Amino acid sequence: MAAANQVFIAVIGAGGVGKCFLSQLQALATRRPSPKLTLCYISTSKKALFHDDYAEISIDTALDSLAASSKTPPELSQIIEYLAAAPAKTVLVDNTSSQDVAGKYPLALSRGVSIVTPNKKAFSGSYQLWKDIAIAATASGAKVYHESSVGAGLPVISTLKDLVDTGDKVTKIEGVFSGTMSFLFNSFAPTEGQGGKWSDEVKKAKALGYTEPDPRDDLNGLDVARKLTILARLAGLPVESPSAFPVQSLIPAELESCASGDEFLDKLPQFDSRMEETKAAAEKAGKVVRFVGSIDVAANAVKVGLQEFDRSHPIAALKGSDNIISFYTERYGSNPLIVQGAGAGGDVTAMGVTADLIKVVSQFS
Amino acid sequence: MAAANQVFIAVIGAGGVGKCFLSQLQALATRRPSPKLTLCYISTSKKALFHDDYAEISIDTALDSLAASSKTPPELSQIIEYLAAAPAKTVLVDNTSSQDVAGKYPLALSRGVSIVTPNKKAFSGSYQLWKDIAIAATASGAKVYHESSVGAGLPVISTLKDLVDTGDKVTKIEGVFSGTMSFLFNSFAPTEGQGGKWSDEVKKAKALGYTEPDPRDDLNGLDVARKLTILARLAGLPVESPSAFPVQSLIPAELESCASGDEFLDKLPQFDSRMEETKAAAEKAGKVVRFVGSIDVAANAVKVGLQEFDRSHPIAALKGSDNIISFYTERYGSNPLIVQGAGAGGDVTAMGVTADLIKVVSQFS
Repeated sequence: MAAANQVFIAVIGAGGVGKCFLSQLQALATRRPSPKLTLCYISTSKKALFHDDYAEISIDTALDSLAASSKTPPELSQIIEYLAAAPAKTVLVDNTSSQDVAGKYPLALSRGVSIVTPNKKAFSGSYQLWKDIAIAATASGAKVYHESSVGAGLPVISTLKDLVDTGDKVTKIEGVFSGTMSFLFNSFAPTEGQGGKWSDEVKKAKALGYTEPDPRDDLNGLDVARKLTILARLAGLPVESPSAFPVQSLIPAELESCASGDEFLDKLPQFDSRMEETKAAAEKAGKVVRFVGSIDVAANAVKVGLQEFDRSHPIAALKGSDNIISFYTERYGSNPLIVQGAGAGGDVTAMGVTADLIKVVSQFS
Repeated sequence: MAAANQVFIAVIGAGGVGKCFLSQLQALATRRPSPKLTLCYISTSKKALFHDDYAEISIDTALDSLAASSKTPPELSQIIEYLAAAPAKTVLVDNTSSQDVAGKYPLALSRGVSIVTPNKKAFSGSYQLWKDIAIAATASGAKVYHESSVGAGLPVISTLKDLVDTGDKVTKIEGVFSGTMSFLFNSFAPTEGQGGKWSDEVKKAKALGYTEPDPRDDLNGLDVARKLTILARLAGLPVESPSAFPVQSLIPAELESCASGDEFLDKLPQFDSRMEETKAAAEKAGKVVRFVGSIDVAANAVKVGLQEFDRSHPIAALKGSDNIISFYTERYGSNPLIVQGAGAGGDVTAMGVTADLIKVVSQFS
């Protein structure tokens, strides 16, 4: 059973981020023997591994053991009751992007189970869910950390929280919030040189693994809209949902009904002239076009879409698939606080999750 | 006496940062009634205010009450004993830049008093003091946070700690770590246009309040060397002291013995040709000169001084008195994680202190 100085960890999801997280968790548990981080539950959508007596699951063989397990995942509410009944504090690490799991956060928190996750869904879904999460966490004292829900491991959420918590007034947040969009526009409309055809860049991004399996899931702007929803809410705006403000989709209306991502990519070249015109218009003004999100706090205005920037602007000068987030605040004045770097990838996303876990565990007495 | 859910706060120093901190503390205590943050001690180098029964000092009138106090500050060790005997957890907020106060951190921590501070001295002094602080904190469980010791409120220390704690390998840290140096070089060697004479820019910076009262305290590079010492140690290098690596001073040797900052400024124009040559050499190579610090972790090499950068480099493109810090790590690969923004000023420095205080208090059970 539980030692005095122990924390139980449950992991849902063992995909790209989940695997990187397990590797970081193992290294962390080795480096820091106290408090003892005990993996007591792990599952994918198909399989689960846990013991009724909370016996420790060896982290370094967890994935093999999970693959060999004959158990299917219990209902989420059952998992939460299992964790709530554990003989020490527990943290649920949700490494999925599941709306169903996100929907159970209020229950988990109300039962004293803390949550650490890169999953955007809970914080960018309905405003009611956002409020329910805050209420449940406040009532029970359980923690909920989600640094990697925006900008992966970049210090975005923590920075915004520090600004707000210390009484600064955030006036505007602006940036490139999608590694995919960053890569596409840095290649399509570089600050120097010509850049390729739009459809070619999309295909290249997909081949390099920078897009979702169906690139429309990046090009519709929803991923960026979800991140903006999270930041806007943290800045104090009661944004109802990611569809409550203007989001520009880069999917030609004619291709929205394509049956597959492959069909979409096949037909996309027919619409290259549209993006070419947008690029040319910006060039004529001596600028480049970028896909950005912005939150004007005073005006209560959130928007996502294409915008022109001077070639010397930090947003224009971004490299590779980097994200950049600028926080304009009363204290920082005209020069914003800027955070920049890789905003996607298993390792850096897991880093945000692991760092959050460390912070949550440090608050357990 | 103490309520169950209470934290006692002692503040040493009521200068620029101290005043801003008190204002943020007052707003914080109003916004978050629990745990109750009780100011029980405040002092400057000349006066002190406290009560033997730890009676609360009203934050909003603390400065007036302190000015009216007839008490002189007790010995530091007496203050620490006073705090250690308080009937609840205590945090000592050191808003000075005093080496004496810094030298007492091990004692405070060993007595269970947590520390929050922008004071660089404890973390950039002797390596023995650095080790003593870590040992005392580990033994007692008291916390020591010092975000504002580098880059003021910018998330520099916390980001580096997160990288290290989650198992990333930091390979290089590079940047502009001084608001004064940033302002001087952005004006003296701008990426566009000519810039002024070196001595004129120094005088302008002093007039704008961007330098220490004696500008030599900025130009000797020691402030940057102290910040580099802190970051290098956090990255794992056992740097003995800020004088254990090459630091380029911008004070002409002939002016080191000037009796005053004013005499120095009077004679500085005689040496303008030297900085002019440095600038011209960079220009000839199509570059600009900047005063930077860098830590090459693998090579165990720290250095501070002038370096040339392409005009399009983020370090060259810096604005105003902004800092920029680039973290190169294994996970982030060739594109570093970058943090940029104002790295000096009372409000943003106090912000780092207040954010640290919130984090420390959140770890009290």
